[in-house]
Amino acid sequence: MYNITIIGPGLIGASLGLCLKKHALANKIHGMDIDTINLKKAKSLNAIDEAHKEIGSYVNESDIVFVCTPVGTFHKIFESLNKFLTKKTIVSDVGSVKGFFLKKPFNNFKNLNIVPGHPIAGTEFSGASNSKIDMFENKWCILTPINKSKSIKVIENIWKRMNMRVEIMSPNKHDKIMSVTSHLPHLIAFTIVGTAFNLSPRDRKSLLNFSAGGFRDFTRIGSSDPKMWHDIFLQNKKFILSTLEKFGNDLDFLKMLIKTENSGKILNILKKNKTIRQKISKLS
Amino acid sequence: MYNITIIGPGLIGASLGLCLKKHALANKIHGMDIDTINLKKAKSLNAIDEAHKEIGSYVNESDIVFVCTPVGTFHKIFESLNKFLTKKTIVSDVGSVKGFFLKKPFNNFKNLNIVPGHPIAGTEFSGASNSKIDMFENKWCILTPINKSKSIKVIENIWKRMNMRVEIMSPNKHDKIMSVTSHLPHLIAFTIVGTAFNLSPRDRKSLLNFSAGGFRDFTRIGSSDPKMWHDIFLQNKKFILSTLEKFGNDLDFLKMLIKTENSGKILNILKKNKTIRQKISKLS
Repeated sequence: MYNITIIGPGLIGASLGLCLKKHALANKIHGMDIDTINLKKAKSLNAIDEAHKEIGSYVNESDIVFVCTPVGTFHKIFESLNKFLTKKTIVSDVGSVKGFFLKKPFNNFKNLNIVPGHPIAGTEFSGASNSKIDMFENKWCILTPINKSKSIKVIENIWKRMNMRVEIMSPNKHDKIMSVTSHLPHLIAFTIVGTAFNLSPRDRKSLLNFSAGGFRDFTRIGSSDPKMWHDIFLQNKKFILSTLEKFGNDLDFLKMLIKTENSGKILNILKKNKTIRQKISKLS
Repeated sequence: MYNITIIGPGLIGASLGLCLKKHALANKIHGMDIDTINLKKAKSLNAIDEAHKEIGSYVNESDIVFVCTPVGTFHKIFESLNKFLTKKTIVSDVGSVKGFFLKKPFNNFKNLNIVPGHPIAGTEFSGASNSKIDMFENKWCILTPINKSKSIKVIENIWKRMNMRVEIMSPNKHDKIMSVTSHLPHLIAFTIVGTAFNLSPRDRKSLLNFSAGGFRDFTRIGSSDPKMWHDIFLQNKKFILSTLEKFGNDLDFLKMLIKTENSGKILNILKKNKTIRQKISKLS
């Protein structure tokens, strides 16, 4: 049983609190949020035991601090944690970008024992009110250690006890893979909604009515939290830009094939991608 | 009760057969397919009553012929129907592109009474074996008449009796709207799978494992029938190319905002599109 602090008990943070308790991993959970409505909600759901509006000396009671806020806030939060903590407390997180942990100021905090992590879980909703006790069940969690600390094993075991499959990789490999499997789909989902409604302002009602033909499913993830995704896009800028470049080229290629009516090559692309997609479907 | 012929009793065609019977709209259903395995399946499911490997004089017994094959096959099929039918039989279809009905040879068949239609329904699977009796329930069906025929009302009533909401619009408006709400999402879904796996061949296993972060949902429609979508992309070339152009520009704009770290504008785009997306979610 650990003493825990959760900074930002929102969709993921509050689910983590609930799940730590379910698996008898947490003794007492401090929760901190500048959004007092969300803070109260997390407390009322028992995702946290004690509610705080700012980071303070209470964090020093914790064995582990989980930072669960948008990645753009990490700089400030880690600086603040550095004032109160010693290396006996492990600082982990659930952010979707990991490369910045290799850079200043993150590689330079004297009092922080950092083990970066990323449970691949979530929904298009946000906030403690949408948290779920089974959010992490049978999903993957990626840890991206930045040193050889023994604390990696502690964090690994916690996620495993919560029925996650854990993989360890470098922060850069994580960011490259996520730029493809998560960040690009979100970028497209955010973009296509705008494209649709700018294209045919007169046909807005028809667009809404007939969105069942692919559009509705496709844009579901486009309603995810704007601040969280804004931060991800900026923090993973390098890999996102190169992935976007490649996707743009592939789309231009298919556009050219349609323009020149290259029937054979179009059919080949569609067949090949159906095969890959079928492999994905077979994964649990 | 009508005598019906279904050309191509696949995912949509066989579902139509089942649904016509459920609502006591069909007397006897002839089914025609060059794929004999699918033809047998449709017969065994009772989606059709009599199985044919080619179009023949039997179609003339029908009050309505529904063409449910990929749109690229329509030219040949309508030419063949023109040999056997008279204008007392209504010829309708379920294709995802409608503009070509305004052009040769479709605007020129002497013996065909054509009422083009498009039930907005389907799944990423294909074939009679995936047909569903409730495929059309509470979905939209678009009719795009090419003349003032009284038969429009007949087709409209049939879909309404099967609990569809029917809207009537011009073939070109249909094709423009579908290029956004259906054809573009499919184009992207087909493309992004290829982009992902060409980008990181070494990371193929990781890409598959971690596809839950958006990618998996996003590519679901990318496993739809290749021949069907090949035909749609070529038949709706004009609107698809202009929609693709616009989407490409919007994506380039977001790319530029990320490159220049224009935090305010990125956040605005994400917020705006979340609002539109929430409106879509509220639609049944």
